[in-house]
Amino acid sequence: MGVADLLLERRELLAGRSGVDIDLAWVADMDTDRAINLGVPREKTVDDFRKLMDKPDVDVVVELMGGTGVAYDCVMAALDAGKHVVTANKALLAERGAPIFAKAREKNRIVAFEAAVAGGIPLLLSLREGLIANRMQSLVGIVNGTCNYILTEMTAKGISFDECLKEAQRLGFAEADPSSDIDGKDSGHKLALLSALAFEMWVDFPTLHIEGIRGISDVDIAITRSLGYTLKLLGVIRTDPEPLAAEKGGKGEVGKPGRLFLSVHPGLLRNADPLAAVAGSMNGVRTEGDAVMESMFYGRGAGRYPTASAVVSDIVAVARASAYGGIGPRWYPPQQNAYNMAPIEDYEARYYLRCVVKDKPGVLGRITTELGANNVSIAAVHQFESDLVGGNASLCIITQTAREGDMRDSVRNITTMDFLEGAPTLLRIEE
Amino acid sequence: MGVADLLLERRELLAGRSGVDIDLAWVADMDTDRAINLGVPREKTVDDFRKLMDKPDVDVVVELMGGTGVAYDCVMAALDAGKHVVTANKALLAERGAPIFAKAREKNRIVAFEAAVAGGIPLLLSLREGLIANRMQSLVGIVNGTCNYILTEMTAKGISFDECLKEAQRLGFAEADPSSDIDGKDSGHKLALLSALAFEMWVDFPTLHIEGIRGISDVDIAITRSLGYTLKLLGVIRTDPEPLAAEKGGKGEVGKPGRLFLSVHPGLLRNADPLAAVAGSMNGVRTEGDAVMESMFYGRGAGRYPTASAVVSDIVAVARASAYGGIGPRWYPPQQNAYNMAPIEDYEARYYLRCVVKDKPGVLGRITTELGANNVSIAAVHQFESDLVGGNASLCIITQTAREGDMRDSVRNITTMDFLEGAPTLLRIEE
Repeated sequence: MGVADLLLERRELLAGRSGVDIDLAWVADMDTDRAINLGVPREKTVDDFRKLMDKPDVDVVVELMGGTGVAYDCVMAALDAGKHVVTANKALLAERGAPIFAKAREKNRIVAFEAAVAGGIPLLLSLREGLIANRMQSLVGIVNGTCNYILTEMTAKGISFDECLKEAQRLGFAEADPSSDIDGKDSGHKLALLSALAFEMWVDFPTLHIEGIRGISDVDIAITRSLGYTLKLLGVIRTDPEPLAAEKGGKGEVGKPGRLFLSVHPGLLRNADPLAAVAGSMNGVRTEGDAVMESMFYGRGAGRYPTASAVVSDIVAVARASAYGGIGPRWYPPQQNAYNMAPIEDYEARYYLRCVVKDKPGVLGRITTELGANNVSIAAVHQFESDLVGGNASLCIITQTAREGDMRDSVRNITTMDFLEGAPTLLRIEE
Repeated sequence: MGVADLLLERRELLAGRSGVDIDLAWVADMDTDRAINLGVPREKTVDDFRKLMDKPDVDVVVELMGGTGVAYDCVMAALDAGKHVVTANKALLAERGAPIFAKAREKNRIVAFEAAVAGGIPLLLSLREGLIANRMQSLVGIVNGTCNYILTEMTAKGISFDECLKEAQRLGFAEADPSSDIDGKDSGHKLALLSALAFEMWVDFPTLHIEGIRGISDVDIAITRSLGYTLKLLGVIRTDPEPLAAEKGGKGEVGKPGRLFLSVHPGLLRNADPLAAVAGSMNGVRTEGDAVMESMFYGRGAGRYPTASAVVSDIVAVARASAYGGIGPRWYPPQQNAYNMAPIEDYEARYYLRCVVKDKPGVLGRITTELGANNVSIAAVHQFESDLVGGNASLCIITQTAREGDMRDSVRNITTMDFLEGAPTLLRIEE
């Protein structure tokens, strides 16, 4: 109800700043008392969104119910009725966006969703308008506050993932069922929308590579911290850096698309990286455009008023576009993708590999030989004493830039070695 | 000529993204060969901007010559001729903006200036549209790349200001006459524009409080670094936190303005502050809005293509507004200021005070007594051995929150004490 609050309290301020007078016409809530208790006049409440669709005083429908079921019906009904839509629903747009945007295009209506990605940060506006002259080259984002809170706490307190999750749930930073956050799906929804907006690449959501933070060990956080890195759950979009890209056709050329990597995974950032300073439940997104070069946007990813701030900015932009005939936040997904999706096996990065091993002669040699056989060069090796890992040695290797497929082959073979205690940890370094 | 480059090379891309076709009609340069050598067709060049003012194919004039003389004539002539203006000229708008915006308002034209503040960062767009639902509460910005480069290098290498400035000049990070940058005037221009845009407060530029970095000692950088702080040249805008503000009338109420602090000064940030990670020639601006809370925007403050990226985004927005009848980046300074300017003496912060003193008994007592007599409480005291400061002791005091006027009174009295070696250093801590 932060949106209703702002619209009611700031009607005059918004009119003065924007030139349009925005009237909160109706609030639909199955429990109308809830809205009334939050300060919405009773005569503006209805108990079913369907009752609003034929009302001529409704120009914009703001969908804030969440989920991909009833919310889908609401948004489609609104577009069918010729109304613009503002929504904060990333799951809905990432998973069922195709028919929604097709309907919006057909009806010549706007679907605005600033609040759906990185909450209070005016990121979509910046990408769509501020950086309009750029071809985007990469995007790395911390877009899930729950995961960032947990990883920040694990780092600060040296506690385990499970302990940290329980504490986060107690404090309201994680939901009772935290899987959508901690398994990376929520970050994936946001990444898919950023891909469409900034890279003209609409992602078939189930094909997106997603790894969450459930398997992150406080041992790896402690070790990588000591090596100068900070661990974050990252959404990464990168244009294909392979030298053959030009030969295969430049990125964005119609009919000859280049390749795009998209991935949600825990990644290591250098401590001096401004993204590494994005702590607690904050969000941060770094972009690289070919004209503007590096940018970063930082702020709250969620919360009642930060989200409302973004939703209201969309409402104002839609209202202005409507009143003055402008375009406003009108945006539709690309009719043709500018890229093909690159398989994660072709991803290139430096890697952090940790193997817990029995203390036997020849262990380091066998592991490094296996890496070498898969074209993986080693940048640094650290062996940590047993107190960190309960009796066995922890062998950490930082590689030179390597191909993900080669790393995976190496890890698969290393895992079968008789001195290994459990599966190795593999983390990408994002530089 | 980055702007001409982007407009020529990306005409189709921009048309596809924005719906408007932007034609680079003319380039005015006293030396037309320069433009031709940079790829502008000869038939599009003229040697005097005055020749463009009556051309009907010119809708938008982009002023990129800099300075406040001829540039003023150019902008006024363009507005008089009914053309929109895009400019990157912060000095022009901060110092002579009043008649320019008055003319723009009279002629119903747009003056867009995204590139004038924090170069490539879409900051003005974000403040004007993305955060439109917020009352801004504070803004702290690193908006001068030259100063930030020098302070970053002094910190990393432990070298003096003079040495660092020479190196920066050699590398092209500082101009031959660096005074506008290092004495803070350039930051002041940007702060004045941010004040107008985000706080509805038009600043009479000569009254702005500005301190530069010429007096910064590498000793203070080393000491504050060891205490957990990073020194930056900051532009600061803060609404008055004094408890009596409500009594004097809430901020922004017509006829009863509150107070606003505006200041450019070297300030200490905690190392964990995301702004402290803004290194080298990068820019970063942190804002606090009452709905969205903390945000930060980071990117390149200058450079050919980052600046061009911002200029072109303005050109596109003006063209869209022009073609579709929308408002676009139209903005005029407030008709009435929302605040009064607060005297810097009423500023409240914690302070870092360093006195170089002869090693005599009673020194610490006399200094701290003087502070106490002026209502300044002490949070921490560190006395450093003589190797840092050539024979004398360096006495560093971190205060509790104190009034600037009280600090200045204290320092004035301490300076007269017989054991002082030179003037004390006083730095504000921004938290």
